[in-house]
Amino acid sequence: MISMPPGYAILNTASVRDTVAGLPDLARRLGGPPAVWKIQEIGDGNMNQVFDLQGPAGGIVVKQSLPYIRSVGESWPFPIERIDFEHEALGVQARAAPGLVPEVYRYDPVRAFIAMERLSPHIILRKGLVRGIRYPRLAEQLGDFLARSLFFTSDLALTTPEKKRLMARFAGNAELCATTEDVVFTGPYWDAPLNRHTRPQLDAAVVALRADEEAMIAAAELKLVFRTATEAVIHGDLHTGSVMVSEDDTRVIDAEWAFYGPMGFDLGAVVGNLLLAYFSQPAHASADDDRTAYRAWILALIEQIWTRFETGFLDLWRHHRSELLPPTLAPESAAAERLYRRRMASVLADTAGFAGAKMIRRLMGISHVEDFEAIASQDRRAQCEAAALSFARELMVRRAHFRSIGALTEEARQR
Amino acid sequence: MISMPPGYAILNTASVRDTVAGLPDLARRLGGPPAVWKIQEIGDGNMNQVFDLQGPAGGIVVKQSLPYIRSVGESWPFPIERIDFEHEALGVQARAAPGLVPEVYRYDPVRAFIAMERLSPHIILRKGLVRGIRYPRLAEQLGDFLARSLFFTSDLALTTPEKKRLMARFAGNAELCATTEDVVFTGPYWDAPLNRHTRPQLDAAVVALRADEEAMIAAAELKLVFRTATEAVIHGDLHTGSVMVSEDDTRVIDAEWAFYGPMGFDLGAVVGNLLLAYFSQPAHASADDDRTAYRAWILALIEQIWTRFETGFLDLWRHHRSELLPPTLAPESAAAERLYRRRMASVLADTAGFAGAKMIRRLMGISHVEDFEAIASQDRRAQCEAAALSFARELMVRRAHFRSIGALTEEARQR
Repeated sequence: MISMPPGYAILNTASVRDTVAGLPDLARRLGGPPAVWKIQEIGDGNMNQVFDLQGPAGGIVVKQSLPYIRSVGESWPFPIERIDFEHEALGVQARAAPGLVPEVYRYDPVRAFIAMERLSPHIILRKGLVRGIRYPRLAEQLGDFLARSLFFTSDLALTTPEKKRLMARFAGNAELCATTEDVVFTGPYWDAPLNRHTRPQLDAAVVALRADEEAMIAAAELKLVFRTATEAVIHGDLHTGSVMVSEDDTRVIDAEWAFYGPMGFDLGAVVGNLLLAYFSQPAHASADDDRTAYRAWILALIEQIWTRFETGFLDLWRHHRSELLPPTLAPESAAAERLYRRRMASVLADTAGFAGAKMIRRLMGISHVEDFEAIASQDRRAQCEAAALSFARELMVRRAHFRSIGALTEEARQR
Repeated sequence: MISMPPGYAILNTASVRDTVAGLPDLARRLGGPPAVWKIQEIGDGNMNQVFDLQGPAGGIVVKQSLPYIRSVGESWPFPIERIDFEHEALGVQARAAPGLVPEVYRYDPVRAFIAMERLSPHIILRKGLVRGIRYPRLAEQLGDFLARSLFFTSDLALTTPEKKRLMARFAGNAELCATTEDVVFTGPYWDAPLNRHTRPQLDAAVVALRADEEAMIAAAELKLVFRTATEAVIHGDLHTGSVMVSEDDTRVIDAEWAFYGPMGFDLGAVVGNLLLAYFSQPAHASADDDRTAYRAWILALIEQIWTRFETGFLDLWRHHRSELLPPTLAPESAAAERLYRRRMASVLADTAGFAGAKMIRRLMGISHVEDFEAIASQDRRAQCEAAALSFARELMVRRAHFRSIGALTEEARQR
């Protein structure tokens, strides 16, 4: 049995009703008597419980962390305190990138839940991509989230004491970092217990990658970057399942993995997961839609998100007097521009590498994605997966060779 | 007036006698009645008070941090708590590199002092270099200190939770980090208030460097590395004034600047300060010794220290099963060796860059070094300084182009 701290109990639809009924600020948002509230457990991630509550006056969502990893069970205990880092990160992100994360109504550290804004009619971006839906404002909004959340927590915006205080705070989220490190950068490269892949179709490719020394070294190098590059408060798990979208609105959720890490890890998570969507598209074709145009839309989306991030980030950098340059060197000078370009080239290399690592781990690691899981035919799925795997390996090993985001998407296009 | 915390008072030779007399563990080391102890204030650094105590039975050193920077005065308040980080770092270093730091006898956080081993007949390495003294075991011992203190605090030796705990601890040393950042990477590149240089002889070179955009960008990039690369607990101020030497023993002192930073910063401090010694040698020539052979010895010393570090560090890496590689890739495999080489190439680039930055700041920044200050003739001094400055600029701007430590020393030799 897993031990639980005093005051904590795993919520269910009955107890969440009682809990919220006892909190007037939350009850008021729902309206009416608690008995009429419609309550559903809707968590579809690997980790937590998520309750959707609707009342006559409105809705809320209650997210509670469990003392283990939900998708595995009690055999894999996991710190309840992750909800504390999620709450801290939501605050940081809301200040840096207003309107791009759900609003927090109440945080209860003892019962380990956050009551927050119920997003409607939003759906998880990954589901939208499987269905072939276009989101006209996604590039702009997700690009802004990346630019602003990464810039305002970086050394370009904070003083050293401010940054180190925040870094010390997030250093407590160590167990989640260690889990990411293992499942993303090491686990996939050997026959680790919970790994899986499409068998037998992908066997040969998986065996080859697990003997591919260049790939393993690249993964090790990226793991070291993940462990040592304290560049910004990163979301830490920014795949397309952590983004909720509607026609005109984008919100980033599930920040419990947040810590001071490399900016390229968040960017790479976005790019890598969009590439997974891209490579899965042929298998989602229907009689009406062969998904050719949609594939092109996804690649354009990758380019637009990167460009929006880069433009926004550099614009902030140019207009903040950072501590990096002496007062005699203007942030708008040609010299400063050279600095910005060199920095962005380095972030792009990290982005490519992390994108590759994130793709590989979803194809032959412990945790997979709906983009491929939803493909019924094993043969068809493996065909798409093999293409994704081969490109992912290139992204990781040749990460320093992509001169622009366009060069990266062009290589995807030609596969 | 500077305010002081309760219980703290600035020691003098009278009060340090009373203080130590009241601490039996320390008094016993000195022996005899306190009245016979010979006490001298011997601090010659910029920062603290250091008392040398000798009694009939032996000696001790008492180092106390002041609430301001000693060389500047009360106009520059500075956190007394730096002694706490020095104490913490001394413990970390003693465990990682036994016998290479002074032994700590007592730490008093309230009165902000450390009572420690009195090193005799050791002198400060920088003074030995000015005098032209050779130290046959220095390369081996300082190389070991670097290899062991950097390896055992790195992600190659620690688990993620262990590393992040230690990182959070040292994150508190933020004000000292911010000071280093300013005086090393920014201050020298503009006409900052306390800067100085040999005038008028060095005027043109200084003006040129302050208009040198490539140099300023390189310094900014190195500053960002200093602020973001949490690779190991680094000493943080490892110049030749922080090393005490005798014929056969080497000890590293003054760890109050310690924090989680880039390994290349410690290596670069050593290399840069040895290069300052190298470029100053012609002006220390005497009728007996033109210092030609000694200059060659210094360059060989740089090569030997680096090689000892690299060999020692990689040897530790090879024999620890780090979390970086999957269990299927042996740490002694040819593939792992490629990873080690790539990592060392990157550390060498950082080392070259930081060495250049540390040299420049000692030639045209706020704080200078005895290697040049001891040269009476302004013309002679400026000549040596100009050569050092020009090479330092190359180290910083072309830091990624040195293929080996030998390539770096060869360029110094040809100047």
